[in-house]
Amino acid sequence: MWEITENDLEPIAIGAGILGTGGGGNPYLGFLRARQAIRRVGRVMVIDPEEVADDHLLIVSGGMGSPVVSYEKLPQGDEEANAVRALERHLGHRFDAIAPFEMGGGNSMAPLVVSTVLDIPVVDGDGMGRAFPELQMITYLIYGGNHAPAALADERGNQVVLSEVTDAMWLEKIARAVTIEMGGHAGLAASPMDGAHCRRTIIPNTLRLAHRIGLAVLDARRTHQDPGEAIISVTGGRRYLRGKVVDLERRTTRGFARGHLVLEGTDDDADRTIRIEFQNENLVISEDGEPKVVVPDLITLVSTDRGEPLTTEVVRYGFRADVLTIPCSELLKTPEALEVVGPRAFGYDLDYSPLA
Amino acid sequence: MWEITENDLEPIAIGAGILGTGGGGNPYLGFLRARQAIRRVGRVMVIDPEEVADDHLLIVSGGMGSPVVSYEKLPQGDEEANAVRALERHLGHRFDAIAPFEMGGGNSMAPLVVSTVLDIPVVDGDGMGRAFPELQMITYLIYGGNHAPAALADERGNQVVLSEVTDAMWLEKIARAVTIEMGGHAGLAASPMDGAHCRRTIIPNTLRLAHRIGLAVLDARRTHQDPGEAIISVTGGRRYLRGKVVDLERRTTRGFARGHLVLEGTDDDADRTIRIEFQNENLVISEDGEPKVVVPDLITLVSTDRGEPLTTEVVRYGFRADVLTIPCSELLKTPEALEVVGPRAFGYDLDYSPLA
Repeated sequence: MWEITENDLEPIAIGAGILGTGGGGNPYLGFLRARQAIRRVGRVMVIDPEEVADDHLLIVSGGMGSPVVSYEKLPQGDEEANAVRALERHLGHRFDAIAPFEMGGGNSMAPLVVSTVLDIPVVDGDGMGRAFPELQMITYLIYGGNHAPAALADERGNQVVLSEVTDAMWLEKIARAVTIEMGGHAGLAASPMDGAHCRRTIIPNTLRLAHRIGLAVLDARRTHQDPGEAIISVTGGRRYLRGKVVDLERRTTRGFARGHLVLEGTDDDADRTIRIEFQNENLVISEDGEPKVVVPDLITLVSTDRGEPLTTEVVRYGFRADVLTIPCSELLKTPEALEVVGPRAFGYDLDYSPLA
Repeated sequence: MWEITENDLEPIAIGAGILGTGGGGNPYLGFLRARQAIRRVGRVMVIDPEEVADDHLLIVSGGMGSPVVSYEKLPQGDEEANAVRALERHLGHRFDAIAPFEMGGGNSMAPLVVSTVLDIPVVDGDGMGRAFPELQMITYLIYGGNHAPAALADERGNQVVLSEVTDAMWLEKIARAVTIEMGGHAGLAASPMDGAHCRRTIIPNTLRLAHRIGLAVLDARRTHQDPGEAIISVTGGRRYLRGKVVDLERRTTRGFARGHLVLEGTDDDADRTIRIEFQNENLVISEDGEPKVVVPDLITLVSTDRGEPLTTEVVRYGFRADVLTIPCSELLKTPEALEVVGPRAFGYDLDYSPLA
């Protein structure tokens, strides 16, 4: 058991933004919400996965919706907690702890807010070890969790319980339709499970990892070191390229930001050009017409000077960025997982080959 | 208490088709489903509204979705009953009887099917006394019924409970989005209420009325009388025009069939031309550029020769039809009701003036 206090929020937001690989929603708004929540109660209790008892009842919590919308429509604060409460009323029991959905900008903070509202701890880990665009892509569900019931809530007081769904794809489809109708953002409570399932399927200690990454970035800024190097030293990743955004195409369909970036190398990489395909998150790096790094491994852009995570929503022509790659969790590399989160699940005719 | 047996289904389907004013879904498929269901158990028990006890728990049941879809995607049979069951599980109690949603082609039959599956009676009446396109347009809700919870179910096994909605418009919006995601048709259970509320807000005895209309049509066919006249004699309506469809524009948006018909008079009406605006249901008759009959009064087309109700989906250029108008229930003429089902609710800049 450890505690997150106000000072931990900024590093966690930075680190989660980096692990978010371009997606996961607006990190700054998530940070503001969490700070407000934590100021009310002083701290968030965090338990490690190994502290979760077999018969604990856990619920996966986060925000559902388009990252595009999260830059335009501010979450009001209690949507996620209301979704959990709706599910508690439906099931007739309370949950003992919250399992985070994904590690991304906004969505790394949402479970912390829920924890303060419901006064139950957060488990240190998440269902992606990064961000992904769809609900069926969480390890809790990939490894046999409950597709139903799940609940959605908006800021007006509307609450919807998906009491039966035939599979994870239908969970995603119906929850997405309700979220869009609710205005493009909704609080989500999904995949209720016991402690044994949580321990078996959670990607562990990603909150702590995000915290360490963020501290390293803040320290590099303060000491005028290279923030990209600082991130690499903590994550075991590498810098694929240092460059400048020279082309960007982005279109939004059904709340998804799809498109590609082209970066031209600078400094030591001056003779190279790479292309990054994204669907909310960065998914494929190609160079010389060949795929070089593919999902589910992490591809993340940070500003060269400050190590600021650049989401696919905010990145612009001319930005100078380090393109970092980080190996994904082993839980995302199994055949079951690759079927749901591998390159083919996103429509790329590519096999996954792990980062060296 | 009375019973509906197999022989009653054809007249009820015809009568409900006529009361359906062009909407309410495919009457023939509804009839086939109900016949199959009734053959299994022999009869449907019907109770009059005055037989409903104050503390009876009732649920409104019907199909939600586009009448367009009901001509293409066959309801599988148990969607509506599964929606009721989902709501029973959510609430933790059983319902004592079913209150029909609307009197339209397919939707007049759905509650009969649910009754056979759940073995509870149907109340003789409905929430519209006709058909309307949207959920908030039922008298149960117009007069203060519960917007939530409500449930939707599809034929695959997906079930969604709207556990809280802020008002009837949000009930409609979210339920519509879920229905579209479920493939355009879903079983609906909504507006749970006690017997006192049901007796106060139901439009009574419309099943019996549909039955009488249908018997009159069948009798006219058998005895070579004028079926339009037979309908008028039972409903207190009038024949507005006998004519021929000479123009038809229909477009489908979000599952709604919107458009207009132009009919040229024949026989005694040979010098007249009328235009009918429809949005799933027929809503306004105009003649000489003036609105003559407007929603919520009933505007219904039947084939001149057989008195067959012509829905806005099946009517075609060249069809010969009687245009009948029937006064709506007094429950639809109050200021509260006209705000929801009057001409302005459908976007027409017109005041309601009741049929003479």
